[in-house]
Amino acid sequence: MNVTFIGAGNVAWHLAQALEDAGHMVQHVYSRRIQTARDLAGKLYKAEPTQSLDLTASKATVFFVALPDQAVETVSAQLQLPEHAILIHTSGTLPLDVLSKHALRGVFYPLQTFSKQKKVNISEVPLCIEATDDATAEILVGVAQSISNTVYLINSHERKVLHIAAVFACNFTNHLLAIAHQLTMQEGLEFHLLSPLIKETIQKALVSENPAAVQTGPAIRHDTSTIDAHLEYLSAYPAAQQIYQSVTQSIIEKAGHRSSKS
Amino acid sequence: MNVTFIGAGNVAWHLAQALEDAGHMVQHVYSRRIQTARDLAGKLYKAEPTQSLDLTASKATVFFVALPDQAVETVSAQLQLPEHAILIHTSGTLPLDVLSKHALRGVFYPLQTFSKQKKVNISEVPLCIEATDDATAEILVGVAQSISNTVYLINSHERKVLHIAAVFACNFTNHLLAIAHQLTMQEGLEFHLLSPLIKETIQKALVSENPAAVQTGPAIRHDTSTIDAHLEYLSAYPAAQQIYQSVTQSIIEKAGHRSSKS
Repeated sequence: MNVTFIGAGNVAWHLAQALEDAGHMVQHVYSRRIQTARDLAGKLYKAEPTQSLDLTASKATVFFVALPDQAVETVSAQLQLPEHAILIHTSGTLPLDVLSKHALRGVFYPLQTFSKQKKVNISEVPLCIEATDDATAEILVGVAQSISNTVYLINSHERKVLHIAAVFACNFTNHLLAIAHQLTMQEGLEFHLLSPLIKETIQKALVSENPAAVQTGPAIRHDTSTIDAHLEYLSAYPAAQQIYQSVTQSIIEKAGHRSSKS
Repeated sequence: MNVTFIGAGNVAWHLAQALEDAGHMVQHVYSRRIQTARDLAGKLYKAEPTQSLDLTASKATVFFVALPDQAVETVSAQLQLPEHAILIHTSGTLPLDVLSKHALRGVFYPLQTFSKQKKVNISEVPLCIEATDDATAEILVGVAQSISNTVYLINSHERKVLHIAAVFACNFTNHLLAIAHQLTMQEGLEFHLLSPLIKETIQKALVSENPAAVQTGPAIRHDTSTIDAHLEYLSAYPAAQQIYQSVTQSIIEKAGHRSSKS
């Protein structure tokens, strides 16, 4: 299948190369900055870098809009595409309808975090597909299955919830590690002392049927003297203290809910 | 070295066997319930299970109190030990002085989470040592180094901070995964869709010099329309909504602090 990328950032970088590895052909790479488009096109077989949003001459069937969320609607409204083109975006957040100027629309959301420096095995990345109609969905699922072993058809609401869950499980988790880093560094302790414990925690949570069932720590033990001592120490870090309170409260409530149900 | 365990729970279970694998010998295993003491003693070379806290006849030099935090002080006050015995606890939270009835005291805190069913490679577990005096510290460091590659001498204050950091990085992280699990299940989505993203997030954070430098998501992008949409969805989950707010606020503050410093 012939495809074109509007955007040449992290997502485009990984998807375009994975698609060509699977036998697809990238026709054009658009970026506002021509050098960015050239950098990605240079990694591809015969893709042409372009700064023009008039892509009516492109031989592609599927056009990927892989841009920052806030640019997707504006840029896609300016796009000139060939007839019967399928326009898709790759965002976890945006509804299908931000592409509403175009008849055949879809979403192709890779549930992974990408950076250009780091190789990602796309075959293990879940791809979440949505489309305006069954025929378009079938085409997109086919493309997705050619590069990944995990392809799901989900609607905009499900994608939104998946994104919220990912914010908790990934963005917020990273911030908790950042707080742990700050606390240890401030005391002259090595953050990496915590690495084995962090790895074991994640592994246990992922193999468990439900992470709540393997919860440990002062909150689940109702160990109020430890909790109070920790909150007192954290008075020097008000934002972290606030998080400590809200997460502790939530652990206690969730445990109460579980035990009252059992 | 001859050692004795007071307590036969998860920590005793793993430490006792690792110590015997390294050539030490466990003399006694105390538990309030004799069957629990027998279960662990049965895994050891010639350890005797006991329900008595009078251990004056034990040939051990080092006595490990591996009990739940709230039991350590009471039980250790009742312990009868041989002269020159070293009494240590394995808690991340308790100060050295909860053992103050005994002259030679120490802490032997393994920075890991243990469950009996799951094999842990103790050689990779950081062991944090504290003692009343240099001679005792030297003995404990020697024992620790015989089973682990990572041994640190830290004081009670540092241990407390390390424990707070571990609460954020592990206990709280697990709870965020539990929230992600709840949100996905409630919508009929598979939690394990998030696994590749979670693993990649943790790996990135641990190889980074500082997890704050690799923060992603709506908060760090100041993407208020996404944040507002997420908070609205979470109004059905007040405890999770509260966490979303406090973590988002903290991410924004931390980023502001970083950029104002650069």
